[in-house]
Amino acid sequence: MVDFKQDILAPVASDFAAMDHFIQTGINSKVPLVMSVSRYVVEAGGKRMRPLMCLLAARACSNVDNNVNKEASLRLAAIIEMLHTATLVHDDVVDESGLRRGRPTANATWNNATAVLVGDYLIARAFDLLVSLKDFTLLQEFSSGTCEIAEGEVLQLQYQHNPDTDEATYLKIIHGKTSRLFELATEGAAILAGQPQHRAALKAYAGHFGNAFQIVDDILDYTSDADILGKNIGDDLMEGKPTLPLIAALMNATPDEQQLLKTTIQTGGVESLDRIIRIVQDSGALDYCRKRATEETHNAVAALGSLPDSIYRQALENLARLALTRIS
Amino acid sequence: MVDFKQDILAPVASDFAAMDHFIQTGINSKVPLVMSVSRYVVEAGGKRMRPLMCLLAARACSNVDNNVNKEASLRLAAIIEMLHTATLVHDDVVDESGLRRGRPTANATWNNATAVLVGDYLIARAFDLLVSLKDFTLLQEFSSGTCEIAEGEVLQLQYQHNPDTDEATYLKIIHGKTSRLFELATEGAAILAGQPQHRAALKAYAGHFGNAFQIVDDILDYTSDADILGKNIGDDLMEGKPTLPLIAALMNATPDEQQLLKTTIQTGGVESLDRIIRIVQDSGALDYCRKRATEETHNAVAALGSLPDSIYRQALENLARLALTRIS
Repeated sequence: MVDFKQDILAPVASDFAAMDHFIQTGINSKVPLVMSVSRYVVEAGGKRMRPLMCLLAARACSNVDNNVNKEASLRLAAIIEMLHTATLVHDDVVDESGLRRGRPTANATWNNATAVLVGDYLIARAFDLLVSLKDFTLLQEFSSGTCEIAEGEVLQLQYQHNPDTDEATYLKIIHGKTSRLFELATEGAAILAGQPQHRAALKAYAGHFGNAFQIVDDILDYTSDADILGKNIGDDLMEGKPTLPLIAALMNATPDEQQLLKTTIQTGGVESLDRIIRIVQDSGALDYCRKRATEETHNAVAALGSLPDSIYRQALENLARLALTRIS
Repeated sequence: MVDFKQDILAPVASDFAAMDHFIQTGINSKVPLVMSVSRYVVEAGGKRMRPLMCLLAARACSNVDNNVNKEASLRLAAIIEMLHTATLVHDDVVDESGLRRGRPTANATWNNATAVLVGDYLIARAFDLLVSLKDFTLLQEFSSGTCEIAEGEVLQLQYQHNPDTDEATYLKIIHGKTSRLFELATEGAAILAGQPQHRAALKAYAGHFGNAFQIVDDILDYTSDADILGKNIGDDLMEGKPTLPLIAALMNATPDEQQLLKTTIQTGGVESLDRIIRIVQDSGALDYCRKRATEETHNAVAALGSLPDSIYRQALENLARLALTRIS
């Protein structure tokens, strides 16, 4: 993720700082190992894009200068980041990753056991804080939403090494693993602000934005020359993950090329990385992916049309557009 | 666990069957891999002692022939079993276990990645079903309780290989990893039945019962000659877990014996298993553990004194006593 520009962060800068503080104080275990690992993974936490989205959504759909609403939206944003962190900690165990954003992962710094259990603690603590917000509609969305997130992750495992994965399945996977939490961040803000008439728009924005964000991420796995996000080129290919660049390439490649792509998805590995990158580029697959990411971004911005115009709505629009600039 | 005798199961036999059915139908993912792994681990699930406790507690503190209460207690019992299953699935990843109760574990049958993520799904689904019960007090207990369960598991990791672990720390660990879920099963039943005056008694029962149950389990790790619970003698020693038999033995052993015990806790391994079993026996440590398990069982039964006498209360008492017979 590139740095947020000032027009995105500035409208909620004080909320953002308070939210960040609340993430720290919200983790309050008496068990020293829980504290040190939780702090470590939460501090490694990147740009806090999801809570930023939550704070902007809260302001975009209501007057959160009302103190009750403001406090609640800060807490919700912190909860979103905790849930996100928990999924990252478990993902790193699942993917056996040693580094994330250039820092050693929890599983590498401690071990798998610690990472699994501290991830469980963060999930439980996020729910604990969520319950304290005392809103049933919110709880229902979050409890069913976290099921869908886990299901998306399992679906991704199920299709790992499967060369017959189609775009519809890919979209189901990325909705679960990425877009669903985006949706909870923004729709949750509308629920908590008592503005149900804006739920659908903010959810649609986040769902499309999440899809665009993940498609861009998957493009970068075949194009980035530096390690943006700590990601190396070829990571997905290494693991035999059939992401959109490969799915699209399979549609237009020659029979020989298709065979190579299919075999590599089945086996994983980066022996043929250079040739596969060339196929992905020459087949027009990257153009197709960019087109899809642009469409999703467009749909995200369009979804906000029913919200009153404000600097917060504009910041949400700019955030979605900014994510797209990573591939332009 | 030995088989439940008829006097324990019979009073809630029809509830028990309905609860078991609800566990099956409560897992309703559209993702085939989530379904197959969840079904596998839930069916491998042993005797369903925790949900049985929940059903008995519900009947012991109220007239659950009221259909609303009955349906709710069945659901709660199923949720308890799902949470328990989720912790077992993650524990098997953490302990790198290949077998549980004689069946291959999820991590062994599939892999760590699948086990971590399906465990996450089961936690999320348990919360989802819990939210549908629409009781805030219950949600608060469960969300803070699941934090404490995760914290107990991490505390156990923190003290693994630590020969200075004392009995107070051991009690904190087993409260989190075992007794806390017992408490949620019985106190949760009282909350849901609208009988808050029985919460404290049922929680105290379950807390003491859980402690006794875990102490017995830890005794069996040094005494069982068959693989009860699929557990092999020396499993805890192998992993360098300072359980009560070792903690108690360290108090009365000779300096040489203490050195051997401490070194083995630090390194793990079963090279000195025979000699350590002899030390644990000759030092009086097992007698001490049996005394402590008996005290905890006595306290569990005594705690039920404030409940009206009924076949359900008697079944709860007998259940606690039955668990103790594993070491008699």
